[in-house]
Amino acid sequence: MKCAGPIDVRDVDESYINIDPIQVGGRLTAEAMKAVIAYGDGYSVCDNCRKPFRLDQIKTPPVDQFHQDLASFLHMDVARVVPGARRGFQAVAGTYVQKGDPVVITALSHYTEVLSVEGNGGILREIPDRDNIITADAAAATIEEVSREFGRPPVLLFLDHFDYQYGNEHEVKEIIRVAHQYDIPVLYNGAYTVGIMPVDGKALGADFVVGSGHKSMAAPAPSGVLATTEERADEVFRTTVTKTDKTSRTFGVKEVEMMGCTLMGVTLIGMMASFPRVRERVDRWDQELINGNLVVEALRSIGGTKIRSEYPRKHTLTRVDTLNSFDKVAQTHKKRGFFFSSALRDRGIAGIIPGATKVWKYNTYGMTRNQAEYLAKSFVEIAEEHGLPVG
Amino acid sequence: MKCAGPIDVRDVDESYINIDPIQVGGRLTAEAMKAVIAYGDGYSVCDNCRKPFRLDQIKTPPVDQFHQDLASFLHMDVARVVPGARRGFQAVAGTYVQKGDPVVITALSHYTEVLSVEGNGGILREIPDRDNIITADAAAATIEEVSREFGRPPVLLFLDHFDYQYGNEHEVKEIIRVAHQYDIPVLYNGAYTVGIMPVDGKALGADFVVGSGHKSMAAPAPSGVLATTEERADEVFRTTVTKTDKTSRTFGVKEVEMMGCTLMGVTLIGMMASFPRVRERVDRWDQELINGNLVVEALRSIGGTKIRSEYPRKHTLTRVDTLNSFDKVAQTHKKRGFFFSSALRDRGIAGIIPGATKVWKYNTYGMTRNQAEYLAKSFVEIAEEHGLPVG
Repeated sequence: MKCAGPIDVRDVDESYINIDPIQVGGRLTAEAMKAVIAYGDGYSVCDNCRKPFRLDQIKTPPVDQFHQDLASFLHMDVARVVPGARRGFQAVAGTYVQKGDPVVITALSHYTEVLSVEGNGGILREIPDRDNIITADAAAATIEEVSREFGRPPVLLFLDHFDYQYGNEHEVKEIIRVAHQYDIPVLYNGAYTVGIMPVDGKALGADFVVGSGHKSMAAPAPSGVLATTEERADEVFRTTVTKTDKTSRTFGVKEVEMMGCTLMGVTLIGMMASFPRVRERVDRWDQELINGNLVVEALRSIGGTKIRSEYPRKHTLTRVDTLNSFDKVAQTHKKRGFFFSSALRDRGIAGIIPGATKVWKYNTYGMTRNQAEYLAKSFVEIAEEHGLPVG
Repeated sequence: MKCAGPIDVRDVDESYINIDPIQVGGRLTAEAMKAVIAYGDGYSVCDNCRKPFRLDQIKTPPVDQFHQDLASFLHMDVARVVPGARRGFQAVAGTYVQKGDPVVITALSHYTEVLSVEGNGGILREIPDRDNIITADAAAATIEEVSREFGRPPVLLFLDHFDYQYGNEHEVKEIIRVAHQYDIPVLYNGAYTVGIMPVDGKALGADFVVGSGHKSMAAPAPSGVLATTEERADEVFRTTVTKTDKTSRTFGVKEVEMMGCTLMGVTLIGMMASFPRVRERVDRWDQELINGNLVVEALRSIGGTKIRSEYPRKHTLTRVDTLNSFDKVAQTHKKRGFFFSSALRDRGIAGIIPGATKVWKYNTYGMTRNQAEYLAKSFVEIAEEHGLPVG
């Protein structure tokens, strides 16, 4: 069925249990759906924009209050909405990274962090992982190396609390403590934490907390949040200082790295409408982990299957290796690797790349217990049906 | 009525004739509304993202075809969607502007162009206007001045076809010709043209054409388009060249200035769903001007009222000076300046800043002839009711 022109109606989250690794935290709440319908039009939140004419100051709808709520939700001082977490990275890199400056990322950093540094001419150095975990010891060693190589410490450090590849937890608090000994500001990438589990930026010591609306805050894309401390706010949210040469125009309180206003309609209103539920749901993270581990145990019971992520799991995003289980089946199955996604589809489960049977990722976030049990059972049944040992 | 929490249902475009200067071209089509409902979730267009994993290559929904359609719609070679026109400016400035480089804008340039240059450390010089029109002669003189001042020509020139202050048309084609004599790339800002009137980037000679989805393409915010020539595409859409030091990771075909993918859901699908109607509606621009001029003539018939924009009007966005008409009324009216917006509201007309009776803007884009006639009549009636001379 088409919803407009050649565009199919999308019903993956209505008709299936979706386990897509990047999609599950971005599904809209019912409140967001309602708000999105009312605020679809361009500039829809700007009806009551008054002096000083900046998004975060709008009172109706309560965009100003939402910004304060966002900051306190993350235990930071100031927050702004941005068109995706990546635009938060870009703003911070744009503020601190000059051409030739060393910047530290990790062996598991997301590519958008890399692009934000490359775009500003920074030179990247990685903190290596140990068994896919980034430790404070490794961070300290890397900072020392970089300081020797460049004759000065790195100007910025990007840190993913849980990475996108394994969903592993890294030594965030400890690494931030190390970085601060060298006065290096740290950007905490919470794309896989902000909106799904509690995040306390102050307790972690983060200079910047970045979250993704469409990844983990039940909001439309592109949306996200960049929060910071009072001290750093003056830097990353600095306002324009331009005075033009002929007309002597100035541009008020527009923030340079934000490019003025950021999310003028449906994206912002979606974040806002979902926020009360998002704020509440982070406290149920333990239940999410129980569901996730239930599925992990089912997968582990299938002979030859390995959990590549750290174990036991501390996140619902998991990387699994089925080279010696489902991929063995694929080698002789008439559908090849597609047998697996197809068998899942037949059971009403979607979100795994069709054909993938080697190393793949899934995410159980947002499921009911029943759905998690059903998913666990489905993996086992598919294994059994294809003669894989279980137990 | 609330749609979610403290957020009021927004019905300004359902219950009123909206003449907000920045909103009228961004109202969603019925097709976009339907698509937005189906694709509200984060990463909703990514269900079928396959190698090489880049937004503009997705085949289902037909995002790849849409990108080609966008480029040919603008008579350019390559197009990308961006989170608002401003992010298109930022990408181009990020490519060409280094610290200390001179960049030319105009006396009527939008503030987001200024921020994109300021953010990259460029130094702005303005082409002055003559009666609020930017001429090729003035552009040539400014380029000469800048070349003398800096010992080299400007690295980039921003040009608004119709500006946001007056909706005046500027000598775009002629200015581009002049700029090219100095090998200066020109960014054509079509925030007030792309999606509402025909734009032929090739005929104009533009190096970059930028449009706004939420301003003029009936799409949700933030959205927009950056189109360019084959030659410039390699520069502004250059792909990442980073290879990380420890893990030797590379990041495929991700484009640095785009920060990888840009609009992953509702914003893109809204642009796509509206596009067939948008492509069609630009050919009815003459009808829009007839409607606009009908309202302009009504305003001119009110004693003391001046059209500050160029006259006759070539755009539906108009700046009007009612200092000697409605503002005179405001001085003794018990509602002060609010009498005017309030009288309009009573007649079902919205979109003018409450209290504004001095110099203000409105936009008649997208009205039916009946609505334009009604608006014209309403202005005249309000004048007559308050004893202003008409005729």
